[in-house]
Parts: sequence; structure tokens; C-alpha cells
Amino acid sequence: MIDARFFAAVVPHTAAELAAVAGADVAGDGDRVLTGVAPLHTAGPADLAFFDNPAYRDAFAASDAGAICARPEHAAIAPAGAVLLISAQPVRAYAVAAGALFPPAAQPAGISAAAHVDAAARLGPGCAVEAGAVIEAGAELGADCVIGANTVIRAGVSLGRSCRIDAGATISHAVIGERVRIGPGCRIGQAGFGFVPEPPEFLPVPQLGRVSIGDGAVLGANCTIDRGASGDTEIGAGCHIDNQVHLAHNVRLGRGCILAGQVGIAGSSVLGDYVRMGGQAGVAGHLNIGDGVNIAAGSGVIRDVSDGGTVGGYPAQPIRDWHRQTASVRRLARGGKDGNGEAG
Amino acid sequence: MIDARFFAAVVPHTAAELAAVAGADVAGDGDRVLTGVAPLHTAGPADLAFFDNPAYRDAFAASDAGAICARPEHAAIAPAGAVLLISAQPVRAYAVAAGALFPPAAQPAGISAAAHVDAAARLGPGCAVEAGAVIEAGAELGADCVIGANTVIRAGVSLGRSCRIDAGATISHAVIGERVRIGPGCRIGQAGFGFVPEPPEFLPVPQLGRVSIGDGAVLGANCTIDRGASGDTEIGAGCHIDNQVHLAHNVRLGRGCILAGQVGIAGSSVLGDYVRMGGQAGVAGHLNIGDGVNIAAGSGVIRDVSDGGTVGGYPAQPIRDWHRQTASVRRLARGGKDGNGEAG
Amino acid sequence: MIDARFFAAVVPHTAAELAAVAGADVAGDGDRVLTGVAPLHTAGPADLAFFDNPAYRDAFAASDAGAICARPEHAAIAPAGAVLLISAQPVRAYAVAAGALFPPAAQPAGISAAAHVDAAARLGPGCAVEAGAVIEAGAELGADCVIGANTVIRAGVSLGRSCRIDAGATISHAVIGERVRIGPGCRIGQAGFGFVPEPPEFLPVPQLGRVSIGDGAVLGANCTIDRGASGDTEIGAGCHIDNQVHLAHNVRLGRGCILAGQVGIAGSSVLGDYVRMGGQAGVAGHLNIGDGVNIAAGSGVIRDVSDGGTVGGYPAQPIRDWHRQTASVRRLARGGKDGNGEAG
Repeated sequence: MIDARFFAAVVPHTAAELAAVAGADVAGDGDRVLTGVAPLHTAGPADLAFFDNPAYRDAFAASDAGAICARPEHAAIAPAGAVLLISAQPVRAYAVAAGALFPPAAQPAGISAAAHVDAAARLGPGCAVEAGAVIEAGAELGADCVIGANTVIRAGVSLGRSCRIDAGATISHAVIGERVRIGPGCRIGQAGFGFVPEPPEFLPVPQLGRVSIGDGAVLGANCTIDRGASGDTEIGAGCHIDNQVHLAHNVRLGRGCILAGQVGIAGSSVLGDYVRMGGQAGVAGHLNIGDGVNIAAGSGVIRDVSDGGTVGGYPAQPIRDWHRQTASVRRLARGGKDGNGEAG
Repeated sequence: MIDARFFAAVVPHTAAELAAVAGADVAGDGDRVLTGVAPLHTAGPADLAFFDNPAYRDAFAASDAGAICARPEHAAIAPAGAVLLISAQPVRAYAVAAGALFPPAAQPAGISAAAHVDAAARLGPGCAVEAGAVIEAGAELGADCVIGANTVIRAGVSLGRSCRIDAGATISHAVIGERVRIGPGCRIGQAGFGFVPEPPEFLPVPQLGRVSIGDGAVLGANCTIDRGASGDTEIGAGCHIDNQVHLAHNVRLGRGCILAGQVGIAGSSVLGDYVRMGGQAGVAGHLNIGDGVNIAAGSGVIRDVSDGGTVGGYPAQPIRDWHRQTASVRRLARGGKDGNGEAG
Repeated sequence: MIDARFFAAVVPHTAAELAAVAGADVAGDGDRVLTGVAPLHTAGPADLAFFDNPAYRDAFAASDAGAICARPEHAAIAPAGAVLLISAQPVRAYAVAAGALFPPAAQPAGISAAAHVDAAARLGPGCAVEAGAVIEAGAELGADCVIGANTVIRAGVSLGRSCRIDAGATISHAVIGERVRIGPGCRIGQAGFGFVPEPPEFLPVPQLGRVSIGDGAVLGANCTIDRGASGDTEIGAGCHIDNQVHLAHNVRLGRGCILAGQVGIAGSSVLGDYVRMGGQAGVAGHLNIGDGVNIAAGSGVIRDVSDGGTVGGYPAQPIRDWHRQTASVRRLARGGKDGNGEAG
């Protein structure tokens, strides 16, 4: 079920049409018309849903959804009479189909009369600037950018085409690529945490670098990305960063990194390409984290990690070692003779 | 001592009057007039304080407070000549009495000339909208709502009567009940962290749900609550959520949950009623946390927890097991023969 | 290399001039002219860099920097022909020299026509108030303060001279000293997390205190500092607080404390002077943390810590104990006979 106050522009499709769009096979009535999406447990006969995670097997079996994207091997446990969009990647099929049902609306171009755009800022064609937004002199926006209400773009910042900055954000000292999306309340480019601490004195270290963000990167809400002390804090192309993530000065992320909510990375640490970090994980300063590394949620990484490594724990270590230790400690506390994880 | 710049409207009461209001018994001079509140260690003769936590026993014994809410069993260690408001629940008695001394001021109604309210937004009687606030078309506010300065209410959002949204917040795709309070800088209803990660591609999953917030819920500052991917992210009636809490898409909280600062809950996890989470605790995605569960500060929950359970640790487990393990490990490191927590 | 869009006002100096300013000795060509700064690995012949952390030894040896601040004992491994500014404190020398190259620009005074300053607010001479900022009645700003775009200063707040509040922040119920810097998106002075939880009822405890911030304190982006329930939440003079830090009501920090990113401190805990907390560390409520205490990143402190203590772990304990336990557990899981950390 879709709330038309927020998603009015539905384009109804039959199950067969959605299957074709999504590269899926239909099982059941392909003429079923879909006009909404919903999770399995609340979906009605005009809603599209998906089933992939076995934890929701019962909800799948009992679902009243109009159509369900599912794996071939799950067809046997589908509810009687269900229409299935069969795919080896049901979430992908669902994503494509849902995008066909609800194509994203383009924001009408135009600068609000209540926005504050300096005459010396340069905006490409098709930009939208909402009420209360501030764009300072020398800022340069590519075509078709959207600057949300009450967002502040400081002097000299550059954005490539088709960026969308949501409301209430602040961006300074930044060079941003194309198609970058930045969530509400993000703070990008402020001075990092740099000083020489000699109590009672604290001598500030001038923060003379920038933030650079690659094409297609996505940042969630209320993130904080400090500019480099000298040189850049870098977010590679296609990185996906969730809410409340903190990147300190001179952190560098490669391409396509995925950082879940409330992750923090201390100054000057460098991550390779396609690194994944679970929620609330942290990385200490001045570390090298290789390509394709996986860091478990809640971990605290205090040493370098080689390409392809998977680590977890606090302090973080190879994930198998951590699991073994956790098991050993449990066994120890239960009174085992030794704590050998293999036996536990 | 109260700073009249911030709390000018004191209504002086005698100790006896306050005791009557708060359902407490007076010990000592009931005619003592109170005009302020303060903590035990700084309170003066016109200030009301309270004593409940034994850690502050010395401050209680030495306090110059004009009157102190305290338990009956603590009367014996009160300072000589003290006026006590005796109650089995001294914090509750204090809260009621302090509310009598400083009744909350109603914000005068009216829409600031510097606010940006769309003609197609509907506002109930008695609403106040501060400078720089943006309310888009189709938003609907019940009576007596307050929208803080520079806060953005997106199209179609609905708020019940007597909601108070503090400054600098952003709300979209949300259906909000009555008497809800949302702190400054909160980000509510933005798209969640949903994509199909197939490096180098990331296919976005359309985020077509909402946020629903029940009557009387309270959110602190700079929280981030993503809308559902399909269906709602839900915050039950009476939930109390502290600052910098992150709820991912499709998280559902029952009634009256208490989440302390910097808590994070990953996507689609469901909490029952009256769950309590300590500060910086985390819950992984797709979990079921039962009614009345307690989760210790800093814990990382990676498995379901049944009704009434109390868990702690990283990864979280039953709290007794965690304490026993902590003790076992300490003993082990000190060189004990085994690490049995019972002996430790 | 410096991006002139953000840092235009360079004052070129020779290496000898910078050395004189920074109290360093020159090795090599003192007439080398510097016009920028950069990290070792990207610096060019007109850039100043520094080398202190041995982890960057290779980058130092290969650097093309025009001049490098370095320790005397590292001169031997400097690149051939390098110009060195020799100092026992190379970061301090760099900070002073970089400040000479790029003296901070003063913000021109003046109140934006798009700001909303109440007639009953008092502003000292030389203040700058940016577009969309709101300053309410009774607020009082010392000379030369800067209030960033879309920031809200509530009624009665006082700031000493030369404070700089960045964009999109919110300040209420606060008494702030001189030269205080507050990052974008900070939330200061809102009501703390105070209620009597008696499900299904939650009786709010009136939050009648303030926030007080001492001279020279620095706060990063998106921090949340709740006001006291009664009495003040206190940040001592010269404290340095990184991004996304949360201080609950009635927390008190002494002078010069250093809190790294995403730290959280629960209600009423008191820290002495010059306490240091690593990133993502937490302190439970109602604790006393002595002067000069060090708390490791990611730790969870649940007990008092005496002056000068160093703690780590979850729950936190003396750092040596924690390291010993970590080693013991590793040994245990590998199948060692005991888990004695000394042997491990």
C-alpha cells in the first residue's frame, strides 16, 4: 500500500509487464495489475512484494501480495494462487519493478524567491534551489542540481551535474562530482580536529585542504566529513554512506565503499575499493585498509587489514579468530577445563 | 538557582504547597518559600532539590537547599534543619513540584513573516511557525503545533495536535500523532540505505514507505529516522528517544520504548513494547526483540531476544552470562588455573 | 597544493623566514619560496609538509616537498636536497608556519539583510550575522562574533567576544565565553532526556538548567549538548570536542578535555581537567573521571577512574589489564593450556 500524499505518480503495470522489465519469469496470473508495493505481511492484492531472506518464510507463505519477487527454489512454498516474479536476484527484480511503478519525479527547475544565491555563483541550466538555501560567491553548480531548503553552499564549492543536496546541509571547501546525493543535515568541509595539544595551550593546525567526492556517491543524513588538513579528504566514486557517519580529515575511501550507520573513521586512514563496514564500526587513525575488506558491525579496527580480509571484534581481528575467542570465553565461563574454541 | 533569562515565569510556592501538589509529606518548616531549583551541591535556601541516588549521599548531607525531595529512609541523614518533601518516589515528587514552580510557557500562535508556508498547506488553529521554517503543499498540521525556525516540513506530512518540532529539523514522508516532540536537527523520512550492491554498480531500491510516529513520542536532537522501503518505519506511542539515535528503514518500535543517546538499529528489526536500550547500543537488522527487553549500554545485539530478556556485551548475550565471562577473563589474565566465573 | 578557490590569501615566505617564525632550524636552501602546503606524498616544490609519525617514513624519503618540518633525528633519512625545518616538535612548527602562509581571514562585519535579528537582541561591534540566521530577543553577543547562515540563537543566550558559530546550528539556554568555536549543525541547550518512566506513563522532569561553555572551547559538527536538568551542563575552558559528540544533561568537563568523534557521556558524569577520550568511547551516568585520565577509543566506562588513570575495553578497565586479557583470550582460543597473558 502506498500513501498517495507522498508517491502520487504510480504507473500501473501487469505482473507480466513488470517481469519483462525486471528480467524475471512470471508464475501465475500475468495479467494481475499492480499499483503499489508493500512488505509481505501487509501487502494486498494490488501490491508488489519480495521474498529473499529466509527469516521471512512464514510471512511469504501467508502473504496476500498481488505479486511477489522470489527465487526459483522458493516457488514451492509460495502461498496458493500467488503470482510470482521468479528471479535468481529477487531484490534486484523488485528494485527494477518498483522503479517502473514509481518512476522518480524530476524536481522542477527554478530558484526560490526565498533563496539567497550570490550573484557571483554560477548555476548550470535546470537547477532547483529551494527556500532559505544559501549559495555563496564562486560556487559552481552543474546542470540539473537540486539544493534543498536551508542548505548552505559556501564560496568556491563545485558540484557536477545532477547532484541532489537535501535540506539543512552545509558544504564548504569541497569539490563534488556528478550525480552525488547528500542527505539532510550533512556537514561537509568544515575544519577537522587538528591542534597541537600542549595543555593548557592548544595550537590550532590550519586546515587547508578540501573534501573531494566522486561521481555517483551517496551520503545519508547528518554525516560529518571534515576537510583535509592539507590535501583532500576523499570519498571515491560510487561510495554509499549511511546516516551519522563521521570521516575525519584526510580519510580516503576508494571506489564503491559501503559504510553503514554511525561508522567513524579517524584521521588519515585509507580504505581501498569496495570496503564494507557494518554499523557503529570504527577505524583508528593512520591505518591502511585494503581492497574488498569487510569489517563487522560494532568492530574497532586498530591495525592495518590486507586486501580481502574480514575482521570483527574489539579490538578487531580476523573474523574466525574473533568467533573462536567468543566461543572459548563462553565455554570458560561455563566452567570448561580449557577454553579451546574448537571444542566449544 | 535559576537563570531568569531562560526561565522567568516562576510561581513561588511554600514547601507545604509543593508537597501537597506532589503528594509528598513535609518534614521541617512547611512555610519555607521556594523560587528556584538546583542540584544538591549548589542549591541555596530558596531552591528545591532532590536526593535519590545514594552516590550523592555526601552532597545531600551537606546541602544548603531550601527543600529536598527524599525518601523516608533518608530523612535520618538529612542536613540539620532541612525541609524535606518525603516521598517514596523523590524524583517524581521533584518533577511535579518543579513543574508547579515553572509551568511551561505556551508559545504564542502565529506564522512569522519570515516563514515560508505554502498556500496549499493546512494549519490548525493556534499553530506557531517560526522564521525560516518551510511548510510545503499538502502538509497538514493539527491545532497548536509549533514549527521551529528553519525547520522544513515536506509535502504531505501530517502532524496531530500540539506537536512541537524544534529548530533546524527536516521531516518528509511522515505521519505523526498528537503531542509529539521532535528535537532540533532531526532528520525524519529521508530515503533509507537501500540498494543492490553489485560492484561496480549499485542499483537503488526505491524507498516508497513512510515514517509513522505515535502519540506522545519524544525524540531528542539530531536523530535520523529513515522512511520504510515499503511499508512504514514505526515509532510507537510514548517512545522516548535520546539524541543522535539512528533508526534504519522499516525498524518498528512498540509503545513506550526508551532509547538512550547514540543508539542505532539496523533495517527491519522489530522491538516490542517498553524495550530499553542503553547509550551507544546497537541492534543488527531483521531481528525480533521482545516486550520489556533491556539492552545494556554499548551492547551489540545480533540475535533475537525474548520477552523480558536482559542482554549485554558484544556480541550481546544474557546479562549474567556476560558478567560471568567478564569475570572469567579477568581471572584468566591474572593467571588463575581455570577461568570459572563462579570462583572468580 | 592549495585550492585558491578556498584559500586565496597566501603570503609567500622563504623557508628561512618560516623557520624563524616557527622556531625551527633550516637545513638546506633557506631561500626556497613556499606558497602552499600539502601532505608528503602529494607535495610539490612550493609546498610545505611535515613528517613526525614514523608510519610515513617512506613517504618522507620520497617526498618532493619544497620544505619539510621534521625532527633532528630524521634528517638522515630525508630525501636528497630536501629543505628541512628542523624542530623537536615538527607538527607545532608546521602549524605555526602554515598559519604564516595562510593567515586566517577575518569575516567582514555586518548583519545580512536576510538575517532575522530581534530588535531586543544586543550585538557588540564587529559582529557578522549571515543570511537566514535567527537571533531572538534578549540574546547578547560580544564584539566580533560570527553567526553562520541559518543558525538559531534563542532568547537570552549570551556569547563572549570573538565567538564563531558555524551554519545550521541551534543554541538555547546557554552562557558561552570568549573565542568559542561551534561547528555546523550543533544542538546546544535543548532539554535533556529527563522523565520518570512508569509505563505506560512518562512524567517529564522539567529541564531548568543551562549549558555553560568556557573561553576558547572548540566544538565540531553536529554535536548535541543538552542543558542541565537543574544547574549547568559545563564545558570547561579550552575543551576540544570533535564531531557528533553527545553530552547529556549535567555532564561537567573540566579544562582542556579532548573528546574525539562520536564520544557519548551520560547524564551527570563529571570529568576533571585534561581528560582525553578516543573516538566512539562512552561514559555511563553519575561517574567521576579524574584529572588527566585517558580513555581508549571505543571503550565503555562504567566505573569511576582516578586521576591520571588510563582505561580501555568494554567494560573499561586499566589499560594494561585490558591488553593482558585480550592476549589471554587469544591464547585460550588457540588452545593454550592456560590463558595467562604474561606467557601469551
